[in-house]
Amino acid sequence: MIMRKTNSKPQGILLVVSGPSGAGKGTICSMLRKQLPDLGYSISVTTRQPRPGEVDGKDYFFKTVDQVKDMIFRGELLEYAKVYDNYYGTPRPYVEKLLDEGKDVLLEIDIQGALQIKKVFPSGVFVFIVPPSLEELSARIYKRGTDAVDVIEKRLASATKELSYANEYDYIIVNDVAEKATRKVMTLLEAERYRAARTYFIVDKIIHHNTEA
Amino acid sequence: MIMRKTNSKPQGILLVVSGPSGAGKGTICSMLRKQLPDLGYSISVTTRQPRPGEVDGKDYFFKTVDQVKDMIFRGELLEYAKVYDNYYGTPRPYVEKLLDEGKDVLLEIDIQGALQIKKVFPSGVFVFIVPPSLEELSARIYKRGTDAVDVIEKRLASATKELSYANEYDYIIVNDVAEKATRKVMTLLEAERYRAARTYFIVDKIIHHNTEA
Repeated sequence: MIMRKTNSKPQGILLVVSGPSGAGKGTICSMLRKQLPDLGYSISVTTRQPRPGEVDGKDYFFKTVDQVKDMIFRGELLEYAKVYDNYYGTPRPYVEKLLDEGKDVLLEIDIQGALQIKKVFPSGVFVFIVPPSLEELSARIYKRGTDAVDVIEKRLASATKELSYANEYDYIIVNDVAEKATRKVMTLLEAERYRAARTYFIVDKIIHHNTEA
Repeated sequence: MIMRKTNSKPQGILLVVSGPSGAGKGTICSMLRKQLPDLGYSISVTTRQPRPGEVDGKDYFFKTVDQVKDMIFRGELLEYAKVYDNYYGTPRPYVEKLLDEGKDVLLEIDIQGALQIKKVFPSGVFVFIVPPSLEELSARIYKRGTDAVDVIEKRLASATKELSYANEYDYIIVNDVAEKATRKVMTLLEAERYRAARTYFIVDKIIHHNTEA
């Protein structure tokens, strides 16, 4: 597992935050961005048309279907999905550029996307956000008020199924209070920096400095 | 990897703090004990004679050579070493009793001991303390002033060799300032609590609560 580009500067960490809908990953991710302003974040590619005000390279990388298919073919997407007629995906070269600069990169993504990424990028840190209970999850989905009741019921059923994917992740964070859950994610991100695979280069430096002296 | 005894209460974490001599693991461990008064710690078994004031079951578990050999045979020592004519070892049943009570257990131990424990208890968290540089390590060993110069040189040579074991561990902490290094160990101990293998039982509870309701 290669974690660094050179002997002296560690790569950033790809932090993948995921979980069933209604678990509150969106809230936690915006809190993380506020607390950690240096956090890089991925910009998705999409084949859908830009909406008024959307800027290419900022909101999305806007691509044609052929371009996205080429990217998939060349392994340049960490994950992708086709939603109705449009492709959405996470560009690997862009994420790797940020990581090589030493930036941690936050990626908020659904469970299918996260599991795709884990296969091609296992050195990422995979965090699963869970609601404190199914009652609470249901209350949150209802409160959004954007969906019809039968849609909500479907979502709730799929959320329950999705919960069982939790043990495919590195960490599970129970989101009872968003601030607390955010602090826990920050704690685990810091701890990941001390992982032997990410810090061994320091030991290497200590040993070799001596040999050279 | 079984991390818990029942469905509702997580096991404690076995925190193994190790590193070359002079890295400062002793200082860090006493700071950890002060910061985390609930931390359990292992009591070693030994075949040496109790010194005046030493209490059996508090300072050591004092045993005969035959008793210790029986414990080794039954797999009841997480690790052991023979130092001159005496055996020293870490009793597995005692450590497991504390973990089952939900207590985290701190174990400060040399590298050989830590690597033995990792084999039989891989769910422990293994932390390697390194000095910021070999110059600093050398200064620390000299400052102790307890050893003759040739003993110090030997220790320094073996410390350099020992550093290369760092990547057998889960975490590497550079001990430049002991307070900072201690805080980093506390951070990683907290993060380990959120590991999926240790928290999946919560998800299990959320899912099953629903089925029963």
